[in-house]
Parts: sequence; C-alpha cells; structure tokens
Amino acid sequence: MAKLRLPYQELYEVLFRVLLEAGFRTDRAELCARLFADASRDGVGSHGVNRFPRFMEMISLGVIDIHAQAEPVACHGALERWNGKLGPGNLNAYACMDRAIALSRQFGTGCVALANTNHWMRGGSYGWQAAEAGVIGICWTNTMPNLPPWGATEPRLGNNPLVIAVPRPERHVVLDMAMSQFSYGSLESYRMRNEELPVYGGFDVKGQLSRDPVAIEASGRPLPIGYWKGSGLALMLDLLAALLSGGLATHQISADSIKESGLSQVFLAFDLPSIDQSSVSGLVVNQIIEHVQGTDSAGEKIRYPGQRTLEIRKRNLADGIPIESRVWRRIQAL
Amino acid sequence: MAKLRLPYQELYEVLFRVLLEAGFRTDRAELCARLFADASRDGVGSHGVNRFPRFMEMISLGVIDIHAQAEPVACHGALERWNGKLGPGNLNAYACMDRAIALSRQFGTGCVALANTNHWMRGGSYGWQAAEAGVIGICWTNTMPNLPPWGATEPRLGNNPLVIAVPRPERHVVLDMAMSQFSYGSLESYRMRNEELPVYGGFDVKGQLSRDPVAIEASGRPLPIGYWKGSGLALMLDLLAALLSGGLATHQISADSIKESGLSQVFLAFDLPSIDQSSVSGLVVNQIIEHVQGTDSAGEKIRYPGQRTLEIRKRNLADGIPIESRVWRRIQAL
Repeated sequence: MAKLRLPYQELYEVLFRVLLEAGFRTDRAELCARLFADASRDGVGSHGVNRFPRFMEMISLGVIDIHAQAEPVACHGALERWNGKLGPGNLNAYACMDRAIALSRQFGTGCVALANTNHWMRGGSYGWQAAEAGVIGICWTNTMPNLPPWGATEPRLGNNPLVIAVPRPERHVVLDMAMSQFSYGSLESYRMRNEELPVYGGFDVKGQLSRDPVAIEASGRPLPIGYWKGSGLALMLDLLAALLSGGLATHQISADSIKESGLSQVFLAFDLPSIDQSSVSGLVVNQIIEHVQGTDSAGEKIRYPGQRTLEIRKRNLADGIPIESRVWRRIQAL
Repeated sequence: MAKLRLPYQELYEVLFRVLLEAGFRTDRAELCARLFADASRDGVGSHGVNRFPRFMEMISLGVIDIHAQAEPVACHGALERWNGKLGPGNLNAYACMDRAIALSRQFGTGCVALANTNHWMRGGSYGWQAAEAGVIGICWTNTMPNLPPWGATEPRLGNNPLVIAVPRPERHVVLDMAMSQFSYGSLESYRMRNEELPVYGGFDVKGQLSRDPVAIEASGRPLPIGYWKGSGLALMLDLLAALLSGGLATHQISADSIKESGLSQVFLAFDLPSIDQSSVSGLVVNQIIEHVQGTDSAGEKIRYPGQRTLEIRKRNLADGIPIESRVWRRIQAL
C-alpha cells in the first residue's frame, strides 16, 4: 500500500473542515478531528484516520447523530449513569472520562457508565486523557459479537477493549488491549504481509489451533487471550458495562460493523494525590518499570505499555503522520 | 493422594479451635476459619485448607501478626488508603472489601487500597462477599515475582490475581483469575497426574513453548495469559496496587513463598441499585449468560465464571469437603 506522510496540522485541518461541513459545531469538530488525528499520530491508524471514512458513512446512514450529546440520567455521589443518545462515540467517551475525572477530584474516585453510544475509535485516547489530567484512568467498552466464547464456535462475546492508564511526568503508562489475541485488523495486516502469526491466534475450520491468519479469518474463531481466561474476562466486562450503564449487552448489538451502535462503556478515575501528598508516585512508577525492563531479555525488547506509543508519536510528529494514499484520497473527496 | 471427605462443620470447628489456641480473638478466629473452610468447600483447596499449615507456620515465623487489624490511613470521599499492618491477609482483605461496600452505599462506588498485608488466600472470597452484599465487586492483589515479563526469562512480575463479581439472585457470577496461564499449583497437579497441559503453559529451558508441566517448572518461565497482553495487564495491576495503597510493588516483595509478605491490594465496589431502581439487573445477567451458553458448542461445556464453583459447593456440602489425608493429619497435629 502506498503511504503518504502528512504534517499533523494539515491532517487535522482537513478532518476539521470535513466535520464542520457535515454540520458539527465548531468546538465538537475540533475535538473530534483532534482525536482522529492523534490516534494516527500515535500509530493507531486503524482507529484513527483509516476509520474516518467509515465514521462519515455511519453519519450519512443515521447511525451516528452528530448533534447528540451525552447527558447524565442517574447520579449517586461518585457513580453516574449517562445516555450517549447515539452521538459520536469519541466525543461521548471524552465527555464521560472528563466527568469521571471531575468526580474523582471531588470524591477521590469516580465512575461514569455510558449507554447508547457509538464506537469510541481508539480506546487509549481516554486513558491518555486521564493521565494528562494527572489521574489514574480505567475504561472499557463492549463491542458487537466478534469472539467465540471458550468452547464455542460462534462469536457471541465482544473483544471488549480495556484501557488502564497511570500518569507519570511526560511518560504516562497506558495499556490499551482487546480481549482477543489478535484483532481482525491485525489478522488482516499479517495476511497482507504474507506472515504467520507469532503465536496461535485462533482455530481453523477443522477446530485446530492455528497461526495462519487466513485460516482464522475463514473460521471466524479468533482466540481470546489466555483461552478460557480472556473469555471469562470479556464476559465480565460486558456484564459490567451493560449493568452499570443500563444499556445494551454484546448480544443485543448488531454484528454488521457499519451498524455497530448502541454500545455500553465504563469510565473510572482515581485521584491519587487526594490520598497521597507524598508526590513520590512518579518515582514509584519509574522504579517498577525499570525493574521489569532490567531483567535479562530472552532476545526481545521488554517494553512497558505505552512506550512504543511515545516513540511512534515522536517519529510521526517529526516525519509526518503516515496515511494510506487511498484513504487520504477518500477523505479529500468527502 | 489419599483424600478424606469431612462435614463442613467438623472442618470449620477444627480450624476455629486451632486459631483460637494460637491466640486469635474469637470473632476473628470464626471469620478466618470460615474463609479457609469456604475455599475448600468451593473447590479451591489450594488456597483453602491445603494452605492452612503454611498460614500457621507464617504466624510462628512472625511474618503474619494475628493481632494486627487493618486501619484507614488516608481518606478522601469514596477513596481510602488502608494499612494492613501485616495482619492475616484474609481478615484484612475481608475488612477492606467490607469498607468498599459501605463506601459504595454512600457514594455509589467505593475504593479501598490496602498496603502491608499478607496473602489473601482465595481471592474469589472477596468477590463472593461483594455479590452476597448485592454490589458489584472488583479486587486484585499483587504477589511476589513469579512470572517473567513478556520477552524476559526472569520472574519480575507477579501473577496478580484479579476478581470481578456480579450479584444475581442465588447464582452470582464471579471471575477469579491470575495473570499466568497456569499457576504453579496447577502445573503441579498436571505433573502429578502425568498429564500434558491442554495449551501452551510456558517455555522450556531452551526457550521453546511447551505443554510439559515439568519443563515449565524447570525453566521457571510460565506464560502470562495472552503473552504480551497479560504481561502488560499484570504490570498495570501491580502499578495500581502499589500507587493507590502506597505499599510495596512486586519487585519489593520476597520471592521466598514463606516470606511473601507486605502485599498491596485494591478493592472496588459499585452499588448498582443506587443508580438503577428498575430491579432488572438479575434478568439482564440471565439473558447475557443464556445467550453465551446458547451458542453451538465445539464439544466443551460453555461455563460462566463461578458456575463450576456453585456445582462443586453443592456437591461438597452434600458429600463432605475433600481434604488430602496428609494435610488433615498436619492440621490435627497443630
């Protein structure tokens, strides 16, 4: 695939203009464009600019209501339930993490559960958002059914990405992981590079564990992380998201990706300084990570969650944000 | 191994008497004996009665202070930091989940972070505790280093068990899972049965993925769930536990299991009824689980987390709690 590298600002401005012309309010177009551009800047193009054309298509189809804003519907102290009214998923998620952060300032911790929202694009965005605000953030989303429960062949679980973020001066630690060992996007990348997966990624149609991305795409049976363990964890994340938000569970969400809507999400924040005036937390994080990285390596580089993000961000800001030419042409035609 | 089956009450009373004679206050001996007996009743003998002799040994060695009670040291609304003062781990954990539940009644959600505690034995206990109280519970602990980070050969991460519990009338859903694919206790069980692991469980000494429990015990390189993913998740759980509690991180905890002490833990509770008066949550849980279990099976039984616990509990209450004869003799000699 031919790739361009665009300056961040140019990319951002084109996205902003498209959103404005589609009818977004100026401040919402700014934030939405920034979240898309930031994802590509940080190396997550699959949930950044690559996904922008589909996002605009879902607006045209009426799946996403660009004017809808998430609102609280029930509150009890540090726990709130919000209705996303099928607005843009990234704006809703940002608003709810923002609220969870505010609740954590007031109550030490805060939880916002969001129903009726849309795909949040890059989940890590809301982890970075919390870390930038100096609080610990945890959030997760349910998804359409795309992962068979352990022992089954049909996809009845979501891969339900989970994000955990810990602030540290300038080098936040942010984990952003789905409950499947490889996403379908990742399987596609291996396939297009004609590569085998480094470890088993699913079953083939005969029910044998496989490292062949084509065989797993054919069977529709990707593996949960840790087999039965990730299957159980994905189920619990769906239960919690649906119960706390009062919204849909995975089995009620359309398995047609262009109609994947009405998702449920949970946003947690913990304001560590409110119970710890010692200001040593950055040092503690450094020590823990240095210890883990100091171990003798088995040949691979030992990275902490978010480390590669920062390396990629630095490079992309210097060299330009990489974008596939065909995606860029589609966006310019919007 | 020869096994006995003892009536629950007989088992409980023997443990209670031993604790009382060791100097435990009556109410603490009751709760401590119950938590040990309940774990064996629920099929988790490895963190129940089987571990009781080691628990008593750690008391003799002064690692566990039977009189120490966990106390709050910093509070801000729904977020509290407690000091476990190296008291019995199960009593400390129970007290902190109890406090998190109380905070969730007041604030919708509550978080208690506990430093300076000891092994909590069966983590699931505190999930069941939350569910019995009608709230959603999440808790995790760090551990001594027992899991190499992804890409490394030395154990510098803990397997950091994570518990998530959702209440449902009489049939709570409780996930209790460590971040390693198989615990050392589980590897030992496979070895003693002369069985291969059902999936890769670690590396052998040559660095090849292996299903041989003996080879993994020899290399000391069990696998994190989902390879790099579970490695990242284990790290984040350690970071959160150490930061929120102000206590030790895995790298500061003795890797000698008889001295594994000073652990850090986090207890979260969410009082769903405080934001949801609809009382449909039990129905929602039923629907989600029925949908997952209704899928065509690939030959295995599709279980929800906690289902087997309830089946085992029922059987053990009817037939007696299974205990290895040699463990029972050791306990009777205490």
